[in-house]
Amino acid sequence: MTVKLVVLYSQPDDADAFDEHYLAVHGPLVEAVPGLLRWEGARFDAAADRGEQTYHRIAELWFEDMPSLQEALGSDAGKATARDYGQIAPPGSRMFIATVD
Amino acid sequence: MTVKLVVLYSQPDDADAFDEHYLAVHGPLVEAVPGLLRWEGARFDAAADRGEQTYHRIAELWFEDMPSLQEALGSDAGKATARDYGQIAPPGSRMFIATVD
Repeated sequence: MTVKLVVLYSQPDDADAFDEHYLAVHGPLVEAVPGLLRWEGARFDAAADRGEQTYHRIAELWFEDMPSLQEALGSDAGKATARDYGQIAPPGSRMFIATVD
Repeated sequence: MTVKLVVLYSQPDDADAFDEHYLAVHGPLVEAVPGLLRWEGARFDAAADRGEQTYHRIAELWFEDMPSLQEALGSDAGKATARDYGQIAPPGSRMFIATVD
Protein backbone atom coordinates (compact mmCIF):
# COMPACT_ATOMS: atom_id res chain seq x y z
CA MET A 1 0.00 0.00 0.00
CA THR A 2 1.41 3.33 -1.04
CA VAL A 3 2.05 5.72 1.82
CA LYS A 4 2.93 9.38 1.91
CA LEU A 5 4.43 12.00 4.14
CA VAL A 6 2.14 15.05 4.14
CA VAL A 7 3.69 18.35 5.21
CA LEU A 8 1.58 21.46 5.85
CA TYR A 9 3.57 24.67 6.21
CA SER A 10 1.82 27.42 8.12
CA GLN A 11 2.07 31.02 6.94
CA PRO A 12 5.65 32.38 6.95
CA ASP A 13 6.38 36.05 7.64
CA ASP A 14 7.66 36.49 4.09
CA ALA A 15 5.99 34.06 1.69
CA ASP A 16 8.20 34.89 -1.29
CA ALA A 17 11.44 34.58 0.68
CA PHE A 18 10.15 31.27 2.06
CA ASP A 19 9.40 29.99 -1.43
CA GLU A 20 12.80 31.05 -2.71
CA HIS A 21 14.55 28.90 -0.09
CA TYR A 22 11.95 26.18 -0.38
CA LEU A 23 12.33 25.72 -4.13
CA ALA A 24 16.10 26.29 -4.36
CA VAL A 25 17.30 24.50 -1.23
CA HIS A 26 14.58 22.33 0.30
CA GLY A 27 13.36 20.82 -2.97
CA PRO A 28 16.76 19.35 -3.91
CA LEU A 29 17.08 17.91 -0.38
CA VAL A 30 13.72 16.18 -0.78
CA GLU A 31 14.72 14.81 -4.15
CA ALA A 32 17.78 13.15 -2.63
CA VAL A 33 15.69 11.14 -0.14
CA PRO A 34 16.12 7.40 -0.85
CA GLY A 35 13.09 5.32 -1.79
CA LEU A 36 11.06 8.35 -2.84
CA LEU A 37 8.55 7.36 -5.55
CA ARG A 38 7.64 10.98 -6.30
CA TRP A 39 6.89 14.20 -4.52
CA GLU A 40 4.75 17.25 -5.14
CA GLY A 41 4.75 20.71 -3.66
CA ALA A 42 1.94 23.23 -3.99
CA ARG A 43 1.20 26.73 -2.74
CA PHE A 44 -2.23 27.46 -1.30
CA ASP A 45 -4.14 30.19 -3.09
CA ALA A 46 -7.30 30.30 -1.07
CA ALA A 47 -9.44 28.65 1.58
CA ALA A 48 -12.30 27.18 -0.46
CA ASP A 49 -14.40 26.94 2.71
CA ARG A 50 -13.98 30.68 3.32
CA GLY A 51 -12.20 29.90 6.58
CA GLU A 52 -8.73 31.04 7.60
CA GLN A 53 -5.92 30.39 5.12
CA THR A 54 -4.09 28.41 7.77
CA TYR A 55 -1.39 26.99 5.58
CA HIS A 56 0.98 28.46 3.02
CA ARG A 57 2.14 25.26 1.37
CA ILE A 58 1.60 21.53 1.17
CA ALA A 59 4.23 18.97 0.23
CA GLU A 60 3.72 15.26 -0.23
CA LEU A 61 6.32 12.54 -0.55
CA TRP A 62 5.11 9.16 -1.78
CA PHE A 63 6.76 5.85 -0.84
CA GLU A 64 6.07 2.24 -1.74
CA ASP A 65 5.21 1.21 1.80
CA MET A 66 5.65 2.17 5.46
CA PRO A 67 9.08 0.49 5.87
CA SER A 68 10.39 2.49 2.87
CA LEU A 69 9.08 5.72 4.40
CA GLN A 70 10.62 4.94 7.79
CA GLU A 71 13.91 4.02 6.17
CA ALA A 72 13.85 7.29 4.22
CA LEU A 73 13.23 9.32 7.39
CA GLY A 74 16.16 7.58 9.08
CA SER A 75 18.58 8.04 6.18
CA ASP A 76 21.24 10.76 6.06
CA ALA A 77 19.34 12.54 3.27
CA GLY A 78 16.11 12.22 5.23
CA LYS A 79 17.75 13.71 8.32
CA ALA A 80 19.22 16.57 6.28
CA THR A 81 15.75 17.29 4.88
CA ALA A 82 14.23 17.17 8.38
CA ARG A 83 16.92 19.55 9.67
CA ASP A 84 16.10 22.02 6.91
CA TYR A 85 12.38 21.59 7.63
CA GLY A 86 13.11 22.43 11.27
CA GLN A 87 14.79 25.65 10.19
CA ILE A 88 12.19 26.86 7.70
CA ALA A 89 8.82 25.55 8.94
CA PRO A 90 6.87 28.35 10.62
CA PRO A 91 5.27 27.56 14.02
CA GLY A 92 2.10 25.53 13.57
CA SER A 93 3.42 23.64 10.55
CA ARG A 94 2.45 19.99 10.61
CA MET A 95 3.76 16.67 9.34
CA PHE A 96 1.65 13.54 8.98
CA ILE A 97 1.94 10.02 7.61
CA ALA A 98 -0.95 8.68 5.54
CA THR A 99 -1.88 5.48 3.72
CA VAL A 100 -3.22 6.07 0.22
CA ASP A 101 -6.58 4.42 -0.55
CA MET B 1 -0.46 25.39 -14.11
CA THR B 2 -2.03 22.40 -12.45
CA VAL B 3 -4.21 23.23 -9.47
CA LYS B 4 -5.80 21.08 -6.83
CA LEU B 5 -8.55 21.10 -4.28
CA VAL B 6 -7.14 19.88 -0.96
CA VAL B 7 -9.62 18.57 1.59
CA LEU B 8 -8.63 17.79 5.18
CA TYR B 9 -11.23 15.88 7.17
CA SER B 10 -10.97 16.26 10.92
CA GLN B 11 -11.49 13.25 13.18
CA PRO B 12 -15.02 11.76 12.91
CA ASP B 13 -16.72 10.11 15.88
CA ASP B 14 -16.61 6.75 14.13
CA ALA B 15 -13.68 6.52 11.72
CA ASP B 16 -14.70 3.20 10.18
CA ALA B 17 -18.31 4.28 9.59
CA PHE B 18 -16.97 7.50 8.07
CA ASP B 19 -14.69 5.57 5.73
CA GLU B 20 -17.48 3.23 4.71
CA HIS B 21 -19.60 6.16 3.50
CA TYR B 22 -16.58 7.99 2.17
CA LEU B 23 -15.40 5.15 -0.04
CA ALA B 24 -18.82 3.85 -1.15
CA VAL B 25 -20.73 7.13 -1.60
CA HIS B 26 -18.42 10.12 -1.61
CA GLY B 27 -15.74 8.60 -3.85
CA PRO B 28 -18.14 7.94 -6.76
CA LEU B 29 -19.47 11.52 -6.43
CA VAL B 30 -15.92 12.87 -6.72
CA GLU B 31 -15.25 10.69 -9.74
CA ALA B 32 -18.24 12.22 -11.55
CA VAL B 33 -16.87 15.77 -11.23
CA PRO B 34 -16.20 17.20 -14.71
CA GLY B 35 -12.67 18.23 -15.66
CA LEU B 36 -11.08 16.13 -12.94
CA LEU B 37 -7.59 15.02 -14.00
CA ARG B 38 -7.26 12.59 -11.12
CA TRP B 39 -7.91 12.37 -7.41
CA GLU B 40 -6.40 10.64 -4.42
CA GLY B 41 -7.70 9.92 -0.97
CA ALA B 42 -5.58 8.84 1.98
CA ARG B 43 -6.11 8.04 5.63
CA PHE B 44 -3.74 9.52 8.18
CA ASP B 45 -1.90 6.96 10.28
CA ALA B 46 0.15 9.20 12.52
CA ALA B 47 1.40 12.70 13.22
CA ALA B 48 5.06 12.48 12.20
CA ASP B 49 5.81 15.60 14.26
CA ARG B 50 4.39 13.93 17.40
CA GLY B 51 1.70 16.60 17.54
CA GLU B 52 -2.04 16.05 17.62
CA GLN B 53 -3.48 13.81 14.90
CA THR B 54 -5.72 16.68 13.82
CA TYR B 55 -7.02 15.12 10.62
CA HIS B 56 -8.49 11.75 9.74
CA ARG B 57 -8.23 11.95 5.97
CA ILE B 58 -6.87 14.00 3.09
CA ALA B 59 -8.35 14.11 -0.40
CA GLU B 60 -6.92 15.92 -3.39
CA LEU B 61 -8.57 16.62 -6.72
CA TRP B 62 -6.30 17.78 -9.53
CA PHE B 63 -7.44 20.03 -12.39
CA GLU B 64 -5.72 21.46 -15.44
CA ASP B 65 -6.09 25.06 -14.32
CA MET B 66 -8.07 27.38 -12.05
CA PRO B 67 -10.97 27.92 -14.51
CA SER B 68 -11.42 24.12 -14.77
CA LEU B 69 -11.51 23.83 -10.99
CA GLN B 70 -14.02 26.67 -10.64
CA GLU B 71 -16.19 25.17 -13.39
CA ALA B 72 -16.06 21.81 -11.62
CA LEU B 73 -17.15 23.35 -8.30
CA GLY B 74 -20.06 25.07 -10.04
CA SER B 75 -21.23 21.98 -11.92
CA ASP B 76 -24.15 19.79 -10.82
CA ALA B 77 -21.75 16.96 -9.95
CA GLY B 78 -19.53 19.40 -8.06
CA LYS B 79 -22.49 20.70 -6.09
CA ALA B 80 -23.66 17.15 -5.28
CA THR B 81 -20.15 16.37 -4.02
CA ALA B 82 -20.07 19.57 -1.93
CA ARG B 83 -23.49 18.69 -0.47
CA ASP B 84 -22.24 15.29 0.58
CA TYR B 85 -19.06 16.88 1.98
CA GLY B 86 -21.28 19.18 4.05
CA GLN B 87 -23.05 16.17 5.48
CA ILE B 88 -20.03 14.04 6.33
CA ALA B 89 -17.19 16.47 7.11
CA PRO B 90 -16.67 16.68 10.90
CA PRO B 91 -16.36 20.19 12.40
CA GLY B 92 -12.90 21.63 11.79
CA SER B 93 -12.55 19.98 8.39
CA ARG B 94 -10.91 22.27 5.85
CA MET B 95 -10.92 22.81 2.11
CA PHE B 96 -8.21 24.71 0.23
CA ILE B 97 -7.22 25.52 -3.33
CA ALA B 98 -3.53 25.21 -4.25
CA THR B 99 -1.33 25.72 -7.30
CA VAL B 100 1.08 22.85 -7.90
CA ASP B 101 4.77 23.86 -8.29
